[in-house]
Amino acid sequence: MKQAAIIGGTGYGALELIRLLQNHPYVNVTKLISRSEEGVEVQDRYPHIRAVFKETFSGLSKEELTDIDIVFIAAPAGVANSLLPQLDDGTKQFIDLSGDLRIDEPGVYEKWYGLDAPQETIQKEAVYGLTEWKKDSVRSGRIISNPGCFATAALLGLLPLLPDYAEENGIIIDGKTGVSGAGRKQSLMTHFSETNENVTAYKTGAHQHTPEIEQYLTEAGNNPVTTMFQTHLIPMTRGIMNTMYVNVKKKTDFQALYETYYADSSFVRIQPAGVMPVTKQVLGSNFCDIGLSFDERTGRLLIVSVIDNLGKGASGQAVQNMNVMNGWEETEALWSVPQYP
Amino acid sequence: MKQAAIIGGTGYGALELIRLLQNHPYVNVTKLISRSEEGVEVQDRYPHIRAVFKETFSGLSKEELTDIDIVFIAAPAGVANSLLPQLDDGTKQFIDLSGDLRIDEPGVYEKWYGLDAPQETIQKEAVYGLTEWKKDSVRSGRIISNPGCFATAALLGLLPLLPDYAEENGIIIDGKTGVSGAGRKQSLMTHFSETNENVTAYKTGAHQHTPEIEQYLTEAGNNPVTTMFQTHLIPMTRGIMNTMYVNVKKKTDFQALYETYYADSSFVRIQPAGVMPVTKQVLGSNFCDIGLSFDERTGRLLIVSVIDNLGKGASGQAVQNMNVMNGWEETEALWSVPQYP
Amino acid sequence: MKQAAIIGGTGYGALELIRLLQNHPYVNVTKLISRSEEGVEVQDRYPHIRAVFKETFSGLSKEELTDIDIVFIAAPAGVANSLLPQLDDGTKQFIDLSGDLRIDEPGVYEKWYGLDAPQETIQKEAVYGLTEWKKDSVRSGRIISNPGCFATAALLGLLPLLPDYAEENGIIIDGKTGVSGAGRKQSLMTHFSETNENVTAYKTGAHQHTPEIEQYLTEAGNNPVTTMFQTHLIPMTRGIMNTMYVNVKKKTDFQALYETYYADSSFVRIQPAGVMPVTKQVLGSNFCDIGLSFDERTGRLLIVSVIDNLGKGASGQAVQNMNVMNGWEETEALWSVPQYP
Amino acid sequence: MKQAAIIGGTGYGALELIRLLQNHPYVNVTKLISRSEEGVEVQDRYPHIRAVFKETFSGLSKEELTDIDIVFIAAPAGVANSLLPQLDDGTKQFIDLSGDLRIDEPGVYEKWYGLDAPQETIQKEAVYGLTEWKKDSVRSGRIISNPGCFATAALLGLLPLLPDYAEENGIIIDGKTGVSGAGRKQSLMTHFSETNENVTAYKTGAHQHTPEIEQYLTEAGNNPVTTMFQTHLIPMTRGIMNTMYVNVKKKTDFQALYETYYADSSFVRIQPAGVMPVTKQVLGSNFCDIGLSFDERTGRLLIVSVIDNLGKGASGQAVQNMNVMNGWEETEALWSVPQYP
Repeated sequence: MKQAAIIGGTGYGALELIRLLQNHPYVNVTKLISRSEEGVEVQDRYPHIRAVFKETFSGLSKEELTDIDIVFIAAPAGVANSLLPQLDDGTKQFIDLSGDLRIDEPGVYEKWYGLDAPQETIQKEAVYGLTEWKKDSVRSGRIISNPGCFATAALLGLLPLLPDYAEENGIIIDGKTGVSGAGRKQSLMTHFSETNENVTAYKTGAHQHTPEIEQYLTEAGNNPVTTMFQTHLIPMTRGIMNTMYVNVKKKTDFQALYETYYADSSFVRIQPAGVMPVTKQVLGSNFCDIGLSFDERTGRLLIVSVIDNLGKGASGQAVQNMNVMNGWEETEALWSVPQYP
Repeated sequence: MKQAAIIGGTGYGALELIRLLQNHPYVNVTKLISRSEEGVEVQDRYPHIRAVFKETFSGLSKEELTDIDIVFIAAPAGVANSLLPQLDDGTKQFIDLSGDLRIDEPGVYEKWYGLDAPQETIQKEAVYGLTEWKKDSVRSGRIISNPGCFATAALLGLLPLLPDYAEENGIIIDGKTGVSGAGRKQSLMTHFSETNENVTAYKTGAHQHTPEIEQYLTEAGNNPVTTMFQTHLIPMTRGIMNTMYVNVKKKTDFQALYETYYADSSFVRIQPAGVMPVTKQVLGSNFCDIGLSFDERTGRLLIVSVIDNLGKGASGQAVQNMNVMNGWEETEALWSVPQYP
Repeated sequence: MKQAAIIGGTGYGALELIRLLQNHPYVNVTKLISRSEEGVEVQDRYPHIRAVFKETFSGLSKEELTDIDIVFIAAPAGVANSLLPQLDDGTKQFIDLSGDLRIDEPGVYEKWYGLDAPQETIQKEAVYGLTEWKKDSVRSGRIISNPGCFATAALLGLLPLLPDYAEENGIIIDGKTGVSGAGRKQSLMTHFSETNENVTAYKTGAHQHTPEIEQYLTEAGNNPVTTMFQTHLIPMTRGIMNTMYVNVKKKTDFQALYETYYADSSFVRIQPAGVMPVTKQVLGSNFCDIGLSFDERTGRLLIVSVIDNLGKGASGQAVQNMNVMNGWEETEALWSVPQYP
Repeated sequence: MKQAAIIGGTGYGALELIRLLQNHPYVNVTKLISRSEEGVEVQDRYPHIRAVFKETFSGLSKEELTDIDIVFIAAPAGVANSLLPQLDDGTKQFIDLSGDLRIDEPGVYEKWYGLDAPQETIQKEAVYGLTEWKKDSVRSGRIISNPGCFATAALLGLLPLLPDYAEENGIIIDGKTGVSGAGRKQSLMTHFSETNENVTAYKTGAHQHTPEIEQYLTEAGNNPVTTMFQTHLIPMTRGIMNTMYVNVKKKTDFQALYETYYADSSFVRIQPAGVMPVTKQVLGSNFCDIGLSFDERTGRLLIVSVIDNLGKGASGQAVQNMNVMNGWEETEALWSVPQYP
């Protein structure tokens, strides 16, 4: 049995990790780390967890991690960058759920995140954990940079089109997310009375997943890709839908292309031709469901991809990466029917 | 044309006052007062108001109020108590939407509010503005203590039963409120991800409207009344429903009793016998709708009353009181069809 | 005082018309027509309206309309086409809220609506009531074809770009709507448990507002325009947001372009540069709020437009058209602060 | 491995059974029975289930059940009554999720359900499956009558008080439920635009769980118990909260009483003293969480109990009963962290 610790223990990502790992046959979560809550019983802060998870919050230090094999960092941007150089002893596995290690160019990271770039050796060692695409690298990786929620839905929906089918500057991504994506932090954007019965277009031209999406599409296409990416806040708790409009270079049987591309991917479910997925059909799961429709009138391909932002968009994918890194079944602790309705 | 000022200009109560007064034939809102936002254009903070309301936020001082006839105080508990002694020149009309002036006993106020009690002379002068019940006092009043939202729905639903029909210690009030009742302040209880898809029982045994309800039921019944009052937070923005269970002293035709009691009250709509109202049927309005059902099996009367917490539960009733104080039609600026759906 | 009748009296469009017209100084709604509910008191079906609107539902016949000056048809597609030839005596004003009269080509109507096209003379006489764009025609019109909800938000957001700035085949419209747009009819798509906590992309390649948007953009641009238009169902009751991505032919100061274009339009509020509107800021009102942002990275213009689908998207615009047709102030009964929050 | 069939395969109860049983170590769901959908692939109707559950809907006949060991009936009231006499061969296990077998007196069933009472021998054989209370009977039972959702939350919250502490006619239950409790059937009460931003008090004096609650409280107390029970529809999908107000016969340490009563019950979590549970903390789980507060002012005990109506309120409890009947761990397939947020 391996021992896991979670840093950032009061956030939704950590809670979802605990939920998913609770029944994992090879891993125990033995440390939930939160400097502000050290010593408090977790179930006193999070009553949903009572009787199932009986740990108290731990503080943060290298010693706390002595017997730990796997460390999940589920903290805001910037935390992994400052902690990893202190905590990494070269043997533990680290899975960082933030954006800290996803961007290759320090200047790009600094521009979009407004923070100091990570230490170069760590960023270089980190493997981008979009599991379906990078499985071999993940398998041999030790530090995983877990993808962003919007980026996961975007890349899984677009990768089969590169380099052959998508125009490099012809990709528009209209993203819609539930409020839990903004975390547990309090702000007007997470205030019920402001967000309920409302749709908000936010971070216009400034969403930090933009360079992440472009960097990896560029890698896949071997050509610079630029996307237009606009995110929207929707009055629901969980779920992301990306509606993507793509100018195609040449037509093909897109349905067959996607089905083939993902034939061995347990968690990507291509919908029947012309059927679009809804966010609710992946609630609480690690699935990414994708629907396709070629629009003859305008010559564009429509792709709709949906995930649970806390599942495949964060903690689910982190567990998937952990499974692959450790040679376990990729679906371990993740193969479940989404909650419906 | 009278001039009105609103203190507490960034809250939902102030915004609703502006909405309601916008088309009032005899009043202009010329000052929206917020110390933190002084000098900012209101429409830059509140884009819904753009083009309609073009003032900038004012600061707070006695001079700012020189030309003002009517002052609404739409601020948290404690503010009116500290401001009124400074601002009152003995001629202006004040309508306080907080609980500061509602409680006669200083000790009771201090216990339930955890704040210093108001200056006695001001509290004594203040008229409790449950308009339907205290219309004559309101008409001759100058300082109005506007009732609490839950208290409004409770008292309108219970007053016809006192002193003759309700057992003084046989009243249970189960209250349900939308989130806007908690104001614009950010907390876990107003956080979308925590409140959506959730029902919360809160302030058990401690809701500050309890002594308000009991004081005025006692006044109406000429006998001490004790109630059990439990409030619940519901995942919606606006609306209050009180479900009330009353042990009756003697039976009567309750439907006729209520219809007669409210025969001259424009804003109280007694539902047809046995039909219970829903909160949505009063959305955005000043109505209080009441349904009744006597339960033969248990000998209790069920009363369901609904209001919009920002309408009849706050700003709507404040405008109604202003109308009555000034000799205008009680329904001025308030007679509208609720927004549906 | 003019007399108005509403056909389709049980739907949300009719209810919103009653709400808006309740305080109109020059019009009374004296007939609410519903064949299925003839003789029933409206307030027994719609308790929100109790005490304010006291009519009973009327049946449908030419005689019922004898003393009526203005007829609103707020019924599903196909109804106006079958009724107008029977009911029109050449003198009354008709405002049809359905799509029946919006499409010039009978074949196009039949393809997208799956219904028989309207009588040619009636369709030709009908004026497309996008008030801001067609005010002169509306002023002299007698039969008004009220625009679709998505089409209103799309056209108001795109018209300033034609013919000079938008590429004719470079327009993508990502629409998001609340559930009330689907009316009161019961289906899985309007079922709470299916729609709550969910986002659904629907009518892919098949939304009937597509030909409406294209026909009028083509008219404005004097060149065939094709758009890609995908609609999404959002878990809220009211509100539409169109997020629009436009390839520009040439750059200009778009902010100034729009502000000038709508300088005389009371109900179109151009947001400050770079600020995007939210649906909640127009709730219950006749406003269309528009935000703009030019994306230097991709050379596309982003336009976000929001309306209340039952306000400017349906009944509000119908009242606006009625006001213009009758020489009244365009804002009569419509100039109000949106309900917030 | 035992084989299970589910009758009523298109409803939410059946879907939740599939979700819960998917990872059960000793049971396979091999038949999902729906006469209307016979032959259709389940994943084509319910895309959330794609790739995980690959059966097609079966028709209904005795032969279809030949190799089945356990039959869940997840259908509306009346179905079990008509099917059980045909399908029962005296060897299979049946778990009926409807109210058909819960009421002992035929006349009481007929009055509250408006249907013919069940065959007497079957009703007598059926064991009421409130697992915590009737574990021994369930263990030796073959036909289980699974409790109602509201009844489950009410009885678990009240049983410790009988016969010693609760006045037999002093119990008031104010129930709040999410919309999924009404099933997938379409009606105005499940219509999003009618139910969102709304609270509805429904079935006043007529909820069919009333006689169920009273019958079993009477059994527990050895004295006739009458309750006043009012249900409310809340704008959320899942979750039930019962707020219960009880006149006490004599005081005791209620916190200790409940903790002792449920000391061996894995799924009942008594909250810390004075802390009330919220519905979200049991989402998707089989927990029933209970909070207690004695109100010194009125001498009444407040009990708040929460469940997931599709979990402990239906399918979760059905699985729990199946586990107990078959001698498996009671928590098999049910021991999980609730989904949060």
